[in-house]
Amino acid sequence: MSEAISPLAVPFPAMPSIAGVTPRIARAGYKDWGRCDLTYVELAEGTAVAGVFTQNVCCSSEVELGREQVKAGRARALVVNAGNSNAFTGYRGREAVEQIMAQVSRQLGCAPGEVFVSSTGVIGVPLPKDKAQAGVAAVLQSPPCSWEDAARTIGTTDTFPKGAVAQAVVDGRTVTLAAIIKGSGMIAPDMATMLGYIFTDAAVTPGFLQELLSAANRKSFSCITVDSDTSTSDTVLAFATGKAGNAPLASFDSPGADAFAAALGDVCMQLAHLVVRDGEGAQKFIAIEVTGAVSDDSARAIGLAVANSPLVKTAIAGEDANWGRVVMAVGKAGEPADRDKLAIRFADKWVAQAGLAADSYDEAPVAAHLKGREISIGVDIGLGEGRATVWTCDLTHGYISINADYRS
Amino acid sequence: MSEAISPLAVPFPAMPSIAGVTPRIARAGYKDWGRCDLTYVELAEGTAVAGVFTQNVCCSSEVELGREQVKAGRARALVVNAGNSNAFTGYRGREAVEQIMAQVSRQLGCAPGEVFVSSTGVIGVPLPKDKAQAGVAAVLQSPPCSWEDAARTIGTTDTFPKGAVAQAVVDGRTVTLAAIIKGSGMIAPDMATMLGYIFTDAAVTPGFLQELLSAANRKSFSCITVDSDTSTSDTVLAFATGKAGNAPLASFDSPGADAFAAALGDVCMQLAHLVVRDGEGAQKFIAIEVTGAVSDDSARAIGLAVANSPLVKTAIAGEDANWGRVVMAVGKAGEPADRDKLAIRFADKWVAQAGLAADSYDEAPVAAHLKGREISIGVDIGLGEGRATVWTCDLTHGYISINADYRS
Repeated sequence: MSEAISPLAVPFPAMPSIAGVTPRIARAGYKDWGRCDLTYVELAEGTAVAGVFTQNVCCSSEVELGREQVKAGRARALVVNAGNSNAFTGYRGREAVEQIMAQVSRQLGCAPGEVFVSSTGVIGVPLPKDKAQAGVAAVLQSPPCSWEDAARTIGTTDTFPKGAVAQAVVDGRTVTLAAIIKGSGMIAPDMATMLGYIFTDAAVTPGFLQELLSAANRKSFSCITVDSDTSTSDTVLAFATGKAGNAPLASFDSPGADAFAAALGDVCMQLAHLVVRDGEGAQKFIAIEVTGAVSDDSARAIGLAVANSPLVKTAIAGEDANWGRVVMAVGKAGEPADRDKLAIRFADKWVAQAGLAADSYDEAPVAAHLKGREISIGVDIGLGEGRATVWTCDLTHGYISINADYRS
Repeated sequence: MSEAISPLAVPFPAMPSIAGVTPRIARAGYKDWGRCDLTYVELAEGTAVAGVFTQNVCCSSEVELGREQVKAGRARALVVNAGNSNAFTGYRGREAVEQIMAQVSRQLGCAPGEVFVSSTGVIGVPLPKDKAQAGVAAVLQSPPCSWEDAARTIGTTDTFPKGAVAQAVVDGRTVTLAAIIKGSGMIAPDMATMLGYIFTDAAVTPGFLQELLSAANRKSFSCITVDSDTSTSDTVLAFATGKAGNAPLASFDSPGADAFAAALGDVCMQLAHLVVRDGEGAQKFIAIEVTGAVSDDSARAIGLAVANSPLVKTAIAGEDANWGRVVMAVGKAGEPADRDKLAIRFADKWVAQAGLAADSYDEAPVAAHLKGREISIGVDIGLGEGRATVWTCDLTHGYISINADYRS
């Protein structure tokens, strides 16, 4: 964790333990820092797993292996290395991951493919096998830790630990979802770019869990951006231990499936927003709601063009109601739009309508809104029924300071 | 012009006058600033014109009208307003442009469509018709000015005036091209985003001039980016007065056409590089050469993904050889790439090859290269013969300072 905490930080929630899920942490020393950097979560036998991964074609071995592992649908453990992404490290990086999978699977008596590994940090440096081996040996002897400790340990440039919780009643039983996430920079959809882990005691078949996670991802992680850069390592995994004892959810025909899907969607949205709240250098949390596009996908593309525009993001940082930059960003999105039907609002004040400044426009309430921490921008394209909401943060000196000298 | 001059600035070149071209400047007072902000260039009868314009669908009336005007292929005058882009101003903005066209055409006795108008500055504020009228009246009475004065007057956030010159021998006669450009922020291809004007005494048919300009644009203005934002007003116009007396160039079969095309391409490249050298906050000029892609278009897309990556640009700003961020940017480009065939170099030092750090990699010479003003990054995709070079600048605190409070 960095020294300065994001002004958009929220307190870590009260998170219950999940039956069949035991987190532990240790210090592998991947970087020269005085903190734990290896997180291990043991999962009960029979745990179902689903995952979504970065679309970056230069992805890490962890992502490559993880994509294959989720197809079998079963998990017994998760290992997260912080401080080294192990991406673009060729066969050396892959050997390090396989070593961790073998070491843990021997301990648990499971198949290596049931051990999921993620790594986050600098790209291009092979994960040191000796440190990984000693770290894993240490963590297997460590006592269980809190969710907050685990959330801190998976972090890198994050300034606060991030957790989310939700419950649903399924088959007459209350099931709980507890989730942690890390992410601050190199955040752009496709999916989004971070490591997130969702644990539930619900019984869910792997296939249905994957269906639900993919759907939730489309409206949450894939609708956030900090800096338009897509990481090589992004991973969100959902683990369901089944310890709640409900009849397994296998499809939307299963009783309680809708409630569980809503809870999972809620947790994913909470996690996605937390990442934006910890966007590198972020001073403001920005929601961009696009309506009237020709399709939902088109609305999302327009929203992301606005959210990724450095000129829009710096205007918000400067608390400047420079809505012309929003017009520019809509126009460059490559999606259907008609300048003379376009309308733009800040909060609930329409600043531009029908291709020019709104007659009713009064800058005072807009300027007041822009001085706050939570900024709302609305864009109505005026062509159809497509809609999407995208979240981002402003672009500040803090982003430059953090990233102009991260590796050294 | 801003106070602090870009460290990448180059001196304004010695630029000859062009027969049939007379620039003048005046002060319309579009902003509350103590400088000229209206540029007028009178062109001899029979001048051919070609143009390329922004692809932003929220373009200004100037761009909309200009696109139609170039189809007729003839120009008698150019008017450039600085300090107000007149974009997203609906019918009011269009009326202001038509007023300028009418006022100038009455003076010259030409058709209104032969008067080209560009405007640059804040979006969303209609160009004030009274100031435009008085400014045009004043400029028509002003004495001819130097190219450097004209280059300064079309500028907004530019920190230095930008000009380029080239010559070619056509049909036994030396023809000259003189060009000026403005642009610093909201710079991204499609075409690129700035106002540029090229004047030549060569005789060229409008159709062939358009063909040559469009081709030159693809390798120059469309291969630069400062901040990935595409302006609503970008325009590059080429004017050919024919006063050199050569037999008109009508196709590549015309004698001297190749030499003229090369000179035009040279001028466009000079102008494009000047815009990058004045990129907002720029401290370093970065060339990204992509080879081995599946096509030239794919290479350009990969180059732009690298050039637009905030994490790559901040790493260069920090003089950090963080080549992992280049890997990330290649991987997110959405173009064919194979992680394990990818190679990356800084200057002539290969830092990564075949999917991992190069065995020969020595950081010392790379670190020394990164301390310079001119940075060269090479990316070899290893899949085909496609190649492209893209130019950008680094992302610094200066960009944030300039843009977090530009409008106010």
